[in-house]
Order: sequence, then C-alpha cells, then structure tokens
Amino acid sequence: MLGRMALGVDYAGQDCSLARALELVGERWTLLILRDCFFGVRRFTDFQSHLNISRAVLTQRLTALVEAGLLDRRPRGGREEYVLTERGIALWPALYALTRWGEAQSARGPRRVFAHVACGTDLDGTGCCPICGVPPPPGDLQMRPGPGFDAEGRDNPVSAALAYPHRLLEPLLPATAAR
Amino acid sequence: MLGRMALGVDYAGQDCSLARALELVGERWTLLILRDCFFGVRRFTDFQSHLNISRAVLTQRLTALVEAGLLDRRPRGGREEYVLTERGIALWPALYALTRWGEAQSARGPRRVFAHVACGTDLDGTGCCPICGVPPPPGDLQMRPGPGFDAEGRDNPVSAALAYPHRLLEPLLPATAAR
Repeated sequence: MLGRMALGVDYAGQDCSLARALELVGERWTLLILRDCFFGVRRFTDFQSHLNISRAVLTQRLTALVEAGLLDRRPRGGREEYVLTERGIALWPALYALTRWGEAQSARGPRRVFAHVACGTDLDGTGCCPICGVPPPPGDLQMRPGPGFDAEGRDNPVSAALAYPHRLLEPLLPATAAR
Repeated sequence: MLGRMALGVDYAGQDCSLARALELVGERWTLLILRDCFFGVRRFTDFQSHLNISRAVLTQRLTALVEAGLLDRRPRGGREEYVLTERGIALWPALYALTRWGEAQSARGPRRVFAHVACGTDLDGTGCCPICGVPPPPGDLQMRPGPGFDAEGRDNPVSAALAYPHRLLEPLLPATAAR
C-alpha cells in the first residue's frame, strides 16, 4: 500500500485523520499528479511531459495511487489511462482549498478560475457556488485561465490545452494513437 | 525560504497555485506541525513529544515555517513559543478538508469533531456551520474527541490534553516553567 511505501511508517504513531490522509497523498508529487487527473490528464506520457518528472518516479506514484484505490488503470486504444475513482474525486475540496491558499500568496491573482457550469458562477473561497449555495462536485466545474495565468516557458500538450476553458474530469487531450 | 529547502526546486516548472502551496507545506511533517499549532501546541518540547520526531528535523521545519511567515516565534517565560500567523491560519480550510477526507477512509468514524462555538453546531463536511451558513474561522471552533478517538498507546501531555474538548488556537497546555 502507498502508506507503507511513502510516509506511513513514520506517521504511524499519529492517531489523526490528517496523518492518515498524508500517508496516502503526502508523498512528493502525488497531489500534483492528482491535480492533473482532475484537469483531465489520463496518459502516462502526458503526466510525464507536464510534470517533468522521471519515468521511474511517475511509475511508482501512479502504481501506488492505483493500489490505494485513488486511481483506476484502464486499457484504451492499446495504451493505459489513469482515471480518478470516487475515493480520489473526494479529494477535490482539499485540493481546491490548498490551491486557493497558494493563490492568496501570489500578487498576480489566481492562475485558474473555477465556475459552476449549471449557473455560470465562479466559486467562492470555500469551494461553494455563491448563487446555488452548494459546493459543486468537480465534474460540474469549468476551469479557465485567470489573471495570474502564465503559459510562458512550458512547451507540452497539457500546458497548451490548459490555456483554454475545460470541464474538470473530462479528458483534456484526445486519446489518438497518433499522439 | 522553505520552498528552496523543501520541494521548490523540483516543482519550479509547475505554474500552479497548488504547486506553490506544496512548496511551503508539502514537506514531510510540516502539515502535522501546523495541525498541532491549530490544536494549541506552542512549545518545542510539546511538538517533539507529540509528533515523535527528531530534534533536528523539528528545528528545521519550525525555522522554515517561521521564515515562510506561517509561524511567529515569540519569547515567553524564558522559552520560545510558536504561534500561527494570519497566513498560517489561512491554511485551516485545507487542513480541515484533508482531515475530513482521511476520516472518510476510516471505519471507526471521526477521531475529532469540530463545533461552531457561537451556536454549538458541528461543522458539515465543507467546514461550514449548517445553522449559520458560514465557514467559521478556526478560533471560533471547539474540538472534541469523536467516536474514532483512541488515546491508547500515546503517553505524552499533548495526547492526554486532546482527550478533552478544546478551543482551537488557544494554548493547549499551561506554559509553566515546571513543565
């Protein structure tokens, strides 16, 4: 299990839900891989080019996420896709809250803005739709570049696709054999 | 800065607020130290006995958190206390969301329950008070042991104090010279 491979042994004495969460998602790169999954990245080569990490580390992290039940590995078109499970999707509020906190440290403003598709309203700081009064599930959100967005210096298909509005969880890139 | 010491170099290519958040709080143990700060832990020896980590690692993490502006180091009674800054307190929604996610993986139920002091109502899954319709700041929350709480096997002042209801951010333990 991921916990054993990652931080679990050291955190084992911590009787705390946060410690158990960090056993699963506190490993370096893991939350960024999951973020990419919410954005619709599904293929090994796309994670790799976007995150710019080694094949070995990415393989280990994806395998651990599948074993921990946060990602499903599915064959498609002769290759494999990694798709968030219900358990993985349940991490959205934590990812959103961490992202908002990171944005608040930036003078440039948010890099990405999330809107509730049903009513077209941007989420508030708590992840709720201020019109509907509910926290929409990520599949009901459209992401678009915000005032802090800066695509300069990133030359890969994922960064290019993220310059346009995109609905969360839907595949970000076409899964063609040509790619 | 913490980012340089921790994960910043590797994440530098990631133009994302989450990546920048992880530069600050993604380092091993850092979120657990901040969690303890929300619980009211303030002294080096209390962090150390509760988290059961080495003096060297704790020293490095606390110093980095002070440098990053998430903790203030204050002299008190001939020793030093570490207290969350406004920037550190702003991490509460992310900590709460990660904790809730960790709890959802547990069959025993939540280890800790958080109630809005003003009305006595337990928070919902989004960190909002269902009666007042707002996400209370952490200083307005009282924490108490939940059905999943298990103090067995932890013999330190912090674990003992956490067996009782406690208001977040208020000092958990008396700062007497005798301790």
